Amino acid sequence: MLSIIPIGVDADIISGQDLSEIIVRSIKLSKLEIEEYDILVIAQKIISKSEGRMIDIASIFPSKKALELARVHDKDPRLIQLILNESKKIIRLSKKHAITQTKHGFVCANAGIDQSNVSKDPRYVLLLPQDPDSSARKIRKRMFELTKKNVSVIISDTFGRPFRNGQTNVAIGISGISPLRSYIGNTDQYGRELRVTEIAIADEIASAAELVMEKALKVPVAIVRGYKYKFIQSEDETKPSIDVLIRKEKDDLFLN
Amino acid sequence: MLSIIPIGVDADIISGQDLSEIIVRSIKLSKLEIEEYDILVIAQKIISKSEGRMIDIASIFPSKKALELARVHDKDPRLIQLILNESKKIIRLSKKHAITQTKHGFVCANAGIDQSNVSKDPRYVLLLPQDPDSSARKIRKRMFELTKKNVSVIISDTFGRPFRNGQTNVAIGISGISPLRSYIGNTDQYGRELRVTEIAIADEIASAAELVMEKALKVPVAIVRGYKYKFIQSEDETKPSIDVLIRKEKDDLFLN
Repeated sequence: MLSIIPIGVDADIISGQDLSEIIVRSIKLSKLEIEEYDILVIAQKIISKSEGRMIDIASIFPSKKALELARVHDKDPRLIQLILNESKKIIRLSKKHAITQTKHGFVCANAGIDQSNVSKDPRYVLLLPQDPDSSARKIRKRMFELTKKNVSVIISDTFGRPFRNGQTNVAIGISGISPLRSYIGNTDQYGRELRVTEIAIADEIASAAELVMEKALKVPVAIVRGYKYKFIQSEDETKPSIDVLIRKEKDDLFLN
Repeated sequence: MLSIIPIGVDADIISGQDLSEIIVRSIKLSKLEIEEYDILVIAQKIISKSEGRMIDIASIFPSKKALELARVHDKDPRLIQLILNESKKIIRLSKKHAITQTKHGFVCANAGIDQSNVSKDPRYVLLLPQDPDSSARKIRKRMFELTKKNVSVIISDTFGRPFRNGQTNVAIGISGISPLRSYIGNTDQYGRELRVTEIAIADEIASAAELVMEKALKVPVAIVRGYKYKFIQSEDETKPSIDVLIRKEKDDLFLN
């Protein structure tokens, strides 16, 4: 059995705060304890806040390109400039939406830049963490220092997707657990190769956690408990990485 | 707190069987009881089997078009014929994969036709249910007859998706619960409109359930317990429907 436990965080996270400490305190306030191999799913928003990714949009000076795009698509040129800064590729730009590929490789709206649940002051917007895997790794290590428990960490964000309406939570950073579960080489009960090859469990865990994270309320953390997986305490700082979930454009059968 | 409870089904499902009765028996064998407003996630495979969607591929006579496509892409012409029968649109066809839009509107590989975990006899393949919403509705009603509990039903399947590697479970049929949770008009803690508008909770619940469904083993059912939602006991047989998750092509910002 899997348990998905919401953890409320009753504080406005600010830059430089020790987020792990706040999470540990919040778990205690919920009269719970962290357990070995728990998976901690953390909303990107509080990670970004703690890492100082809140930007005063008034401080942005749009380039000529941003001004032109903003004029054509009736958008704030400073927001367009930020989207350009955070993206390696613009996929679609329309009056209502900007779909881009972020520098990390994620395809999402507005390069993942958030304007809701950011600050009282509407001038502030929130960028994605610069290196979400590294953010997840730091929290995993700090959680161990604070609790002596090995936990995995998944940083989640809410993205739209092609073909299907509605947004879902996906993983944008990971530590301690592999993002994919491979069935390559496995056979079914009749000895035939499985059609399913690799399951994006990191995205499924992020989605599961979303079900207890209240959008308008202060539940930016969930504990996923009871999932069977191989804990990875890698010496290699680059593994596991969310990069394995990012499909190379040339391999995308849905698009080519 | 949310609980995701795996339900093993120790039987090969055959056409015409009362699947609800088998599920109720399996739940009892797990020493569990169904509770009011539980969400039952059921793998498409056993729904299709119980509805007689297993096809002997030797019984298929490929058309000229199927023969030509099969020749070009080095595939079994009978499988191509079945894919054509089940699809309203071919999106991509290559030597390795066929991505189509099924008659229901789902975009997936091979029109959702399965060759693994189907039968001892490799000639058999399994088609998606003809009307998965209706399959879900029938099970919801039959579960009430058998247990006097109102449950929601989500039929899930494992699909790939653009941009991201790895497959995830999504919902292909639904009853009792709306596939989307709307935040339209809601405001954040600072009174600003939420960026997130609609969450595809049906897909998130299907993904959560996948985490306890063992691919190679016989766990085709999961109970999702503790999710807060409005139970829909609609007089209108057409609602809720998975159709709200199917994006109209012209509205797909990711593709246009």
